[in-house]
Amino acid sequence: MAGKVPNLRDEMKRVKSEVDRVILDQVLPKSSPVREVRLLYTMMRDYPSRPAKGMRPFLCATACRAAGGNEEDAMVTAACIELFQNWILVHDDIEDRSELRRGEPALHKKYPESLALNAGDALHARTWEALLRNRSTIGLERTFRVMEEFSRMVDVTTEGQHMELAWVASKRWDLKEDDYYEMCTRKTSWYTVASPCRLGAIVAGAGAKVLSDLEDFGTKLGVAFQIQDDSLNLVGDEKKYGKAKSDDILEGKRTLILLHLLSAATQGERDRVVSIMNKRRERKTRQDVAFVLGLIDRYDAVGYARKRAAELLKDSLSTLEGIPWKGDRKAVGLLRSFAKFAVEREW
Amino acid sequence: MAGKVPNLRDEMKRVKSEVDRVILDQVLPKSSPVREVRLLYTMMRDYPSRPAKGMRPFLCATACRAAGGNEEDAMVTAACIELFQNWILVHDDIEDRSELRRGEPALHKKYPESLALNAGDALHARTWEALLRNRSTIGLERTFRVMEEFSRMVDVTTEGQHMELAWVASKRWDLKEDDYYEMCTRKTSWYTVASPCRLGAIVAGAGAKVLSDLEDFGTKLGVAFQIQDDSLNLVGDEKKYGKAKSDDILEGKRTLILLHLLSAATQGERDRVVSIMNKRRERKTRQDVAFVLGLIDRYDAVGYARKRAAELLKDSLSTLEGIPWKGDRKAVGLLRSFAKFAVEREW
Repeated sequence: MAGKVPNLRDEMKRVKSEVDRVILDQVLPKSSPVREVRLLYTMMRDYPSRPAKGMRPFLCATACRAAGGNEEDAMVTAACIELFQNWILVHDDIEDRSELRRGEPALHKKYPESLALNAGDALHARTWEALLRNRSTIGLERTFRVMEEFSRMVDVTTEGQHMELAWVASKRWDLKEDDYYEMCTRKTSWYTVASPCRLGAIVAGAGAKVLSDLEDFGTKLGVAFQIQDDSLNLVGDEKKYGKAKSDDILEGKRTLILLHLLSAATQGERDRVVSIMNKRRERKTRQDVAFVLGLIDRYDAVGYARKRAAELLKDSLSTLEGIPWKGDRKAVGLLRSFAKFAVEREW
Repeated sequence: MAGKVPNLRDEMKRVKSEVDRVILDQVLPKSSPVREVRLLYTMMRDYPSRPAKGMRPFLCATACRAAGGNEEDAMVTAACIELFQNWILVHDDIEDRSELRRGEPALHKKYPESLALNAGDALHARTWEALLRNRSTIGLERTFRVMEEFSRMVDVTTEGQHMELAWVASKRWDLKEDDYYEMCTRKTSWYTVASPCRLGAIVAGAGAKVLSDLEDFGTKLGVAFQIQDDSLNLVGDEKKYGKAKSDDILEGKRTLILLHLLSAATQGERDRVVSIMNKRRERKTRQDVAFVLGLIDRYDAVGYARKRAAELLKDSLSTLEGIPWKGDRKAVGLLRSFAKFAVEREW
């Protein structure tokens, strides 16, 4: 293992830099004679120019190779996945009232919120437009199939995002672990793992079995990825992680960690946690956050969630082993390394 | 003329009801086993279920007929234009802090704002997905050309929206009439007239001359349409118009009417108008609004703007006459009636 992780990081870096070139040099507009339009373009280029891991484009490019395709054919699609991630983060940060993104102020904190919202829409539209570029490399028919998968990915993601926001807005806490998995599969798994892999495989012309296996692999690993993300939000190193620590408590997020804590806690503790979590972000005190963090620690809720993540990782790896790949074995190995990284990463 | 306007209304109604069927029965999802996802679907169906004129789908269907195509072939595209209008209004209402839309509370006033923002994104994605449905009626190649035009339409609209919002946010008032035309062509003309007509013509397989003439027709008429919209906002009947009266003053909009007023007013009046317009919405008093309305009246700023609209209408009609149409002459007549309606309407 120890030797593989730098290899994975190098590969992720390499794909990310190619995708950045597509996004920043080819897809996103740069200049306009109109002063205000230039500002819009600057705002559209903001998140895509900040450092990011580039996991999703990496998965798309690597699954394409594993399924027997050429990585270059997947680059436009990989860039579109990264663009999707960027516009949805712009809106997500407004919805969650987040302050920090990738170590810098969120877009709506740097510019008026109305402009940030609109810049997210402009990026969204450019994402679909960029997908049309596939035509010259993979032909009309495959371009079409890529867009169908992409549609599904966006639909499911907005549904998951809605579930999470609606729970917060309606102060709903009568949730079971399965509710979390349902939300998280939609909010995270599809666009983080399942669709990036499937899109790469579609570009390579993979058959139905590979695609359905990748759905299975991706939805499980995506949940494990999110659990690790939730954990890092509470116990990670803010500098490595790039988001403000304990933001999920401030935002009232229903994480597996919180749900476990609520099921393990005494009635009194439970009531106090719920009343803290239901407060508006700006009303939560340091003591409130410390109280919740203390209980998370006492009931080892992060440990519990990480155990679930480890099980999901194991399941997803066994699915991965059974996929009838037709392409590059090294790429299959990279997917395996990625799965472990997704759950064990510290950033 | 008197006989043609009801005819136009009937045609707009007819197309609108067909488009509503496509949107509400075919494109937008209805039910989900997950309670929260059902709420999302309800929110997505909200604006599309409110009464609207359906001008844009009418233009798409009618331009298709005028260019020699079958109206049915344009119905999916017409529905997508209406869907686009709906998601952009959801976001526009958040950006402008609007309270009312089509006679009812704006979506972010009926539901938490974070959910409304996300529902707009979900509608946006479904718009692109619905465009893929064109394949079975007009084939891959034309589906593709429709999507390219659609991309351009969304890009330009977000740019125009940005210009207007950026002027408000930066309190910029050193604007000339040409700045207004530039903003308005982007914000309104493309998605209201130029692209709906061009999309219908693309479905019909029209050539480059028809398409470039429609750009010319649509960009001019679109500005005239917006000037009339700005006028109705100030002097129209709130019940017919469906939006809150004088909202543009509350929102600090740079309309042609306001720009003319500023150029005609004395220095003292000008300073007071600018200081009122720069106030936040909630700080503007009834007296502030009455002061601005009084000056608009004194300098006949609405009359001035309507004169510009009448000139633009005349120009656009002369372009319309020169288009080498290959199809239904009755449809061409309807486009002519529409152009007059756009500038003379009271709703």
